[in-house]
Amino acid sequence: MVLDNRRLAQLADHDAFIRRHNGPGADDVAAMLATLELDSLDTLIERTVPADIRLGRELDLDPPKGEAEALDYLKRLARQNKVFKTYIGQGYHNTHVPAVIQRNVLENPGWYTAYTPYQPEIAQGRLEGLLNFQQMVMDLTGMTLANASLLDEATAAAEAMALCQRANKKVKSNAFFVADDVLPQTLDVVRTRAHYFGFELIVGPADDLAAQDVFGALLQYPGQSGCVRDLAPLLDAARDKGIMTCVAADLMSLVLLTEPGALGADIVVGNTQRFGVPMGFGGPHAAFFATTDKLKRSIPGRIIGVSKDSRGNTALRMAMQTREQHIRREKATSNICTAQALLANIAGFYAVYHGAEGLTTIASRIHRLTTILAEGLARKGIALAHDSWFDTLRLTGVDAGKIHGRAMTHEINLRYFEGGDIGVSLDETTTAHDLDVLFDVLLGEEHGLSVTALDETVAAEGKSGIPTACRRRSPFLQHPTFQRYRSETEMLRYLKRLENKDLSLTHAMIPLGSCTMKLNATSEMIPITWPEFAQIHPFAPQNQAVGYKQMIDELAAFLVEITGYEHISMQPNSGAQGEYAGLVAIRRYQAAQGQGHRDICLIPSSAHGTNPASAAMAHMKVVVVECDSEGNIDIDDLRAKAERHSDSLSAIMITYPSTHGVFETNVREVCEIVHRHGGQVYIDGANMNAQVGLARPGDFGGDVSHLNLHKTFCIPHGGGGPGMGPIGVKAHLAPFVSNHVVTPISGVNADCGAVSSAAYGSASILPISWAYIKMMGERGLRQATELAILNANYVARRLEAHYPVLYKGENGSVAHECIIDIRPLKAASGISEEDIAKRLMDYGFHAPTMSFPVPGTLMVEPTESESRYEIDRFCDAMISIRKEIARVEAGEWPADDNPLVHAPHTMADLMDPDWERPYSRELGAFPSEAVKAAKYWPAVNRVDNVHGDRQLICSCPSIDEYRD
Amino acid sequence: MVLDNRRLAQLADHDAFIRRHNGPGADDVAAMLATLELDSLDTLIERTVPADIRLGRELDLDPPKGEAEALDYLKRLARQNKVFKTYIGQGYHNTHVPAVIQRNVLENPGWYTAYTPYQPEIAQGRLEGLLNFQQMVMDLTGMTLANASLLDEATAAAEAMALCQRANKKVKSNAFFVADDVLPQTLDVVRTRAHYFGFELIVGPADDLAAQDVFGALLQYPGQSGCVRDLAPLLDAARDKGIMTCVAADLMSLVLLTEPGALGADIVVGNTQRFGVPMGFGGPHAAFFATTDKLKRSIPGRIIGVSKDSRGNTALRMAMQTREQHIRREKATSNICTAQALLANIAGFYAVYHGAEGLTTIASRIHRLTTILAEGLARKGIALAHDSWFDTLRLTGVDAGKIHGRAMTHEINLRYFEGGDIGVSLDETTTAHDLDVLFDVLLGEEHGLSVTALDETVAAEGKSGIPTACRRRSPFLQHPTFQRYRSETEMLRYLKRLENKDLSLTHAMIPLGSCTMKLNATSEMIPITWPEFAQIHPFAPQNQAVGYKQMIDELAAFLVEITGYEHISMQPNSGAQGEYAGLVAIRRYQAAQGQGHRDICLIPSSAHGTNPASAAMAHMKVVVVECDSEGNIDIDDLRAKAERHSDSLSAIMITYPSTHGVFETNVREVCEIVHRHGGQVYIDGANMNAQVGLARPGDFGGDVSHLNLHKTFCIPHGGGGPGMGPIGVKAHLAPFVSNHVVTPISGVNADCGAVSSAAYGSASILPISWAYIKMMGERGLRQATELAILNANYVARRLEAHYPVLYKGENGSVAHECIIDIRPLKAASGISEEDIAKRLMDYGFHAPTMSFPVPGTLMVEPTESESRYEIDRFCDAMISIRKEIARVEAGEWPADDNPLVHAPHTMADLMDPDWERPYSRELGAFPSEAVKAAKYWPAVNRVDNVHGDRQLICSCPSIDEYRD
Repeated sequence: MVLDNRRLAQLADHDAFIRRHNGPGADDVAAMLATLELDSLDTLIERTVPADIRLGRELDLDPPKGEAEALDYLKRLARQNKVFKTYIGQGYHNTHVPAVIQRNVLENPGWYTAYTPYQPEIAQGRLEGLLNFQQMVMDLTGMTLANASLLDEATAAAEAMALCQRANKKVKSNAFFVADDVLPQTLDVVRTRAHYFGFELIVGPADDLAAQDVFGALLQYPGQSGCVRDLAPLLDAARDKGIMTCVAADLMSLVLLTEPGALGADIVVGNTQRFGVPMGFGGPHAAFFATTDKLKRSIPGRIIGVSKDSRGNTALRMAMQTREQHIRREKATSNICTAQALLANIAGFYAVYHGAEGLTTIASRIHRLTTILAEGLARKGIALAHDSWFDTLRLTGVDAGKIHGRAMTHEINLRYFEGGDIGVSLDETTTAHDLDVLFDVLLGEEHGLSVTALDETVAAEGKSGIPTACRRRSPFLQHPTFQRYRSETEMLRYLKRLENKDLSLTHAMIPLGSCTMKLNATSEMIPITWPEFAQIHPFAPQNQAVGYKQMIDELAAFLVEITGYEHISMQPNSGAQGEYAGLVAIRRYQAAQGQGHRDICLIPSSAHGTNPASAAMAHMKVVVVECDSEGNIDIDDLRAKAERHSDSLSAIMITYPSTHGVFETNVREVCEIVHRHGGQVYIDGANMNAQVGLARPGDFGGDVSHLNLHKTFCIPHGGGGPGMGPIGVKAHLAPFVSNHVVTPISGVNADCGAVSSAAYGSASILPISWAYIKMMGERGLRQATELAILNANYVARRLEAHYPVLYKGENGSVAHECIIDIRPLKAASGISEEDIAKRLMDYGFHAPTMSFPVPGTLMVEPTESESRYEIDRFCDAMISIRKEIARVEAGEWPADDNPLVHAPHTMADLMDPDWERPYSRELGAFPSEAVKAAKYWPAVNRVDNVHGDRQLICSCPSIDEYRD
Repeated sequence: MVLDNRRLAQLADHDAFIRRHNGPGADDVAAMLATLELDSLDTLIERTVPADIRLGRELDLDPPKGEAEALDYLKRLARQNKVFKTYIGQGYHNTHVPAVIQRNVLENPGWYTAYTPYQPEIAQGRLEGLLNFQQMVMDLTGMTLANASLLDEATAAAEAMALCQRANKKVKSNAFFVADDVLPQTLDVVRTRAHYFGFELIVGPADDLAAQDVFGALLQYPGQSGCVRDLAPLLDAARDKGIMTCVAADLMSLVLLTEPGALGADIVVGNTQRFGVPMGFGGPHAAFFATTDKLKRSIPGRIIGVSKDSRGNTALRMAMQTREQHIRREKATSNICTAQALLANIAGFYAVYHGAEGLTTIASRIHRLTTILAEGLARKGIALAHDSWFDTLRLTGVDAGKIHGRAMTHEINLRYFEGGDIGVSLDETTTAHDLDVLFDVLLGEEHGLSVTALDETVAAEGKSGIPTACRRRSPFLQHPTFQRYRSETEMLRYLKRLENKDLSLTHAMIPLGSCTMKLNATSEMIPITWPEFAQIHPFAPQNQAVGYKQMIDELAAFLVEITGYEHISMQPNSGAQGEYAGLVAIRRYQAAQGQGHRDICLIPSSAHGTNPASAAMAHMKVVVVECDSEGNIDIDDLRAKAERHSDSLSAIMITYPSTHGVFETNVREVCEIVHRHGGQVYIDGANMNAQVGLARPGDFGGDVSHLNLHKTFCIPHGGGGPGMGPIGVKAHLAPFVSNHVVTPISGVNADCGAVSSAAYGSASILPISWAYIKMMGERGLRQATELAILNANYVARRLEAHYPVLYKGENGSVAHECIIDIRPLKAASGISEEDIAKRLMDYGFHAPTMSFPVPGTLMVEPTESESRYEIDRFCDAMISIRKEIARVEAGEWPADDNPLVHAPHTMADLMDPDWERPYSRELGAFPSEAVKAAKYWPAVNRVDNVHGDRQLICSCPSIDEYRD
């Protein structure tokens, strides 16, 4: 009998999403437990998670909601946001996301589930997209070099400041100049950074620049109120004085304005949001960072470069990045280890789609409309603050109250300056009809102006707000890529061709230890492109963002309950940013307690590389705590160092479970030791995936943690960003987290500067984590953690007969990931961890994390989302590879001529007419039955990287760099 | 200077979409004209389109709108629809489209731009999806065989009637019995069909079945008011009398009800809409059609079968379909030549995603909620029309007016029977909370019922509305495919794996003559999944579908202007359906004029195969008109036959431009001859793509045409459906088009029966055509036609030095497609058109149309959307293939061992350790540089089809079958 007589509550199936997110079903769990010789998941957890930190109760979260239920609820929240027509500008603009790009990139798991392109052979698609982005930035800024994006314009400006300081060998000053027409949120972030770098910040009119004794300067182009001025004289004068200059530029304006590179800027930064990326209440968007050739060894972030593969074919890769950590260990000035790859790709594709002609039409239309607006206002006697403009006017001497009233009636947002001036920024979406309405709003309805008539005048008289000296004369986007894909059909095929070059979660497990490549469910992704979330300006009036606020508050409440902290700051938009924000909060707190001199930061040798960089940026001194042979913190060394630095101990940064993938049993003791010496405990949340529902860092000693929402809470990696790194803090730190100058955050001290351009970081991707938690509920989240641990232990058990597994907990369990030691094999056979990583591509897999946290190892994290089927497929591949290595060890294949060192194999190998290797083409490219059934092809053969690239780990350098 | 000083009207760029839709840019057009030695597009058109039919003015359409503008406008229309909670049932139900399926299938061009899987080697993905669909239907219905979908439940029932009639050898009756609890829209369509087949239709209580002298019978299960009864005794009695039986079943109910196959049905039909396909105001959805093994040679539609490829590997293909046209030429009873592949795939994937357990939970929940509702109503003394139910109750003796009032307040739709009964159908989306509200609506707010308490009672007492004899006892969906993809990650990878097996427009040009594979733009596709379009029940009150109505009216007005007709009927949901509807309108009109005896339909030998089938179904006699050696209608033969049949001439069916791809110059004369003899002119709109903006069938003699919105007006082919075939008619025919029994259509005579389940066919895809026309405007549409003609002539010119091009117009031009003659080559080399078609796959292309309209030829239609780049790539491939053939001709390669006869080449070929062919693997699989840069791999080697399959053309048999 099929009829199911369960009660309605069960039949309602609110749990349905849990089994969609978690890979193993009940049968799988039973089988895996049998392999582990365990009787239940509970037993596994008891043996794995130390008793003294176990939560011992269920999280107090709502029961899970089904996908449709959760989306219905979220839609109701979203509808509380009001999508007004926005002319606020100030770094954020309406844009038309080209539909073909929205559907096939932003909404396509083939793009958004990919990982950072550390393995270039299986990442040529997004590498090309990012190269387009760099080319677009270089062309429009007129600079020689651009990176593949930074988090936002404000942090890009802060990075520029740091770069000026370390690159400027001529001027000895410790001061940095910021023009007073820089965007206020940029100034806010730069001020925070400067303070902890110990730089003096001088803010004044741009004209005063040449009179300053500073190592660098930041100018805005056009200025924040819209003024377009020829910066060349200022930049010339600065150069004469040895001052390095950074211009923060609006990318769309550069279509019509002389490029900053031609004006003499050393660095150009800005936002690419208005190139087809929704405003999203502040992010995520891709900032750009471009420099002269001179600075190429110092540019922060990732740079995509063109190289060759082993067959001599062109291949793209992330080029060597000279990180300042390598150069000046004692004083790191950047902890950047991510980018906004998905958004950078979108902006780059926007430029590919429109090309130079399309962008010229768009920018010219924006400018024409602005000029018509200016002309109309002039006829009506309205005074403007400037007689030049690209897209922004600042009206002076107007009745702001009346205008505001009319604007609200028309559901229009303007920028309201203190003192009563009104700002109006036009954009790609503005139409002639919009101008009619704007005239009504700005002048009242009796104005009698006609946009058509004004257009005639403006065109006939050649009027423009761009001074002749500032008009762009150089071509841009001349590369064929920006000319060939003009029809939607061609664009679609280009996007699909690139997508199909890349291995993403749509193909296979991506078992990257520490990176947590779990399911990014469709229902989590759907809300981010709803207009009610996508089209909200970050500085829109609060009553238009009520839905955002509630969603963010709810998410914060979930995270408070999950972590055991008392407050969440949503501002940091990457994990490293969270570290920085957390350490800065500690320093502010300690300063407020009269303990501002505390500046020692203890960091175990197993730590993520960003930890010391963040500490250095917070003006702390890093003291490394050793680990024992088991990979655990050496408690004696910790005691000794805490004792030695007791008076100046500011904090410890630990990761839990450790980066070795182990639940250390003494974590409470570690926290207590540090607290006893007056220090604060920063617990890196990278491995929160192993704790949710089982233990809470806020309970066992943490004062602050960042959460990688893009790991534990399902925000996709986007092929190398976006991320989100909110921090949880105990109550005493809550007033000291980041505030925001434009949109102040309640409960935070007014003098706390910002760390991001927008108050809530990349707010538009927060619905992803909200939906994940809402659909999983307590039961689902806990089960996810348990299954993540089960999957990892199952992998460890299946592989340990073939590869040594490093580091286990007291009872022989690993946490949610396991480390496989390749060093003995390499010694015996010459086959390296990299050879295995590349060989896995032939089997259809992405490599595990290489050589982190231990050189010569592979760290595997299956996550809870992988099914037993897929995990077995992976283990089978690893075991098959081990057998291949055995044939090398046995001398059957030469150490320099075997399927491992030649991996990955490509179609070019199969076509090779001179194939004379000691193994068949088939063994090379089709080493398993699974691959024969569904082959993913690496696009190029092994890319020829320098050694430094091979050692790149999550973009961040090893802690070892910080030893003495 | 970059600044663009064009006027605002130009800068506004409303034309932007035109250059996205049309492939060639201005430079390309110039280059192609140069190749054709023409000075302008105008010259080409003058030489191609006969002067006496040229429009000579611009179409009176609004100027084009940009994509964002058009979508804004359409969104405003959509918002005029009201998405009420709907309990109407009656064959349409709310459903949750699984998000992972919505995003990765329904909204993914990799799925929706594919063509019908006639070329199985490059269609294994969707063939597998359709096989899943068949398996699902077979399992749930308990039948031996199912086809790969039909258009809707009503036409499926009509097909079943025809099948009963032709398969029943025992009963001599001309009557068909329909139970009176069959869905009214099904009865409406069956009635129309029966009338023109000349069948008597007997409608009565199901219990009367055994007493009838009929060849077949149609029963509904459960009945339309919800009653669940054991049909076995009825079906047994019918079988005893030799009556064949068809059961129209609700697929979701079959999860819990005894499958009709076990009850003894010969045929089972129904709708799969509620398996994850939005209601969409009536369609498109996939209907199913399942039979006993005995009927396998007679089943209409497509059947996917499992076969082998040339390496002996399993390969799927469309199996041989025994079409009744082949068997009984004089009396075709089906013109079915399409399916609803995209929707069938979605329904199949819904079953894969949920599996038997998930479906059981869903169906049990629906049933439990219904039982609770029944229990509550019983307690309140409300009488039900039946004491059994699955998901539907019919309330009797209630105050329908009061209930209606409360329902409107709660934004709820119920079914209101004539006479005051109320129908309530629950579905997958219904919740316990919804029941609370339903009780309020049905009983008023003081009812005091608790759903939880009722649930307790129902569960404890094991209450159910399903009689014990009707409870399903057999398992279903036991195949591993329905068990393995339960996590979203696994499901996503499965969908992507299938997608990547298929060649679609995302990979390359699909140059199918007559099929018009043009761009299906993203902006056109976006609206179809808006809830305001997707979630409207086709029988919702008219005031909830105001937006639909206006959109449909606007689209109709566009099509009226484009075609020159005076009225559009939107009901037919395929081209063949349109033919039938058009011919029926002619017959009704003639009958009203006292000319009902006119039954001769002239059809030229070059016609589409559906034409004669449709004519036969409209009870017409087909008389074939010959074509001359140039492929044009032999005007003397036409005159003679029109003369001979003057008294009984009903109509002529012609295609224009002809199926030979030529603008015949005498089309006006053809129409005049027929009119002179009292006939009506049906102009098949398959080639409307070559006329839009240049000529109008309504102007040069047409009385009626169908329009393939899925060809000319951008509805995607969906891998084999959906389609839409509205008809345009002159005013005299307007009252005689299809009406609808549930939702009458104004201006149409009340006694005109329906041809589709829903009044507006597949209404939810109409926004695609609306958006296309809106964004192109007159200028864009005309340019599209001109470029389609240019592209075809360019192809013809480039290829004619290598292959003979058949059929050109008077001035040597082809229309929008060209036919390449392979027969001489085959005679010389043994290489066939099929070898070339398969070889093109190695070059990354889909084959052109094979052997239609002329055996041994290839018909190429590039459409306007292909760029010169892609067309050149295609021509280069064809020329390269010609050179390969030359090597066979020259004896360099044996006729039975060369890259053509072995095509397509797969990865299996590359791995072949015994490769001993006279050409290299590389030449086999990578014959061009373009392919080396981006290779699409056929999933299997050449599939071993019987000759009949090789000759399949657009699923429809050649006109030659109708001679004598």
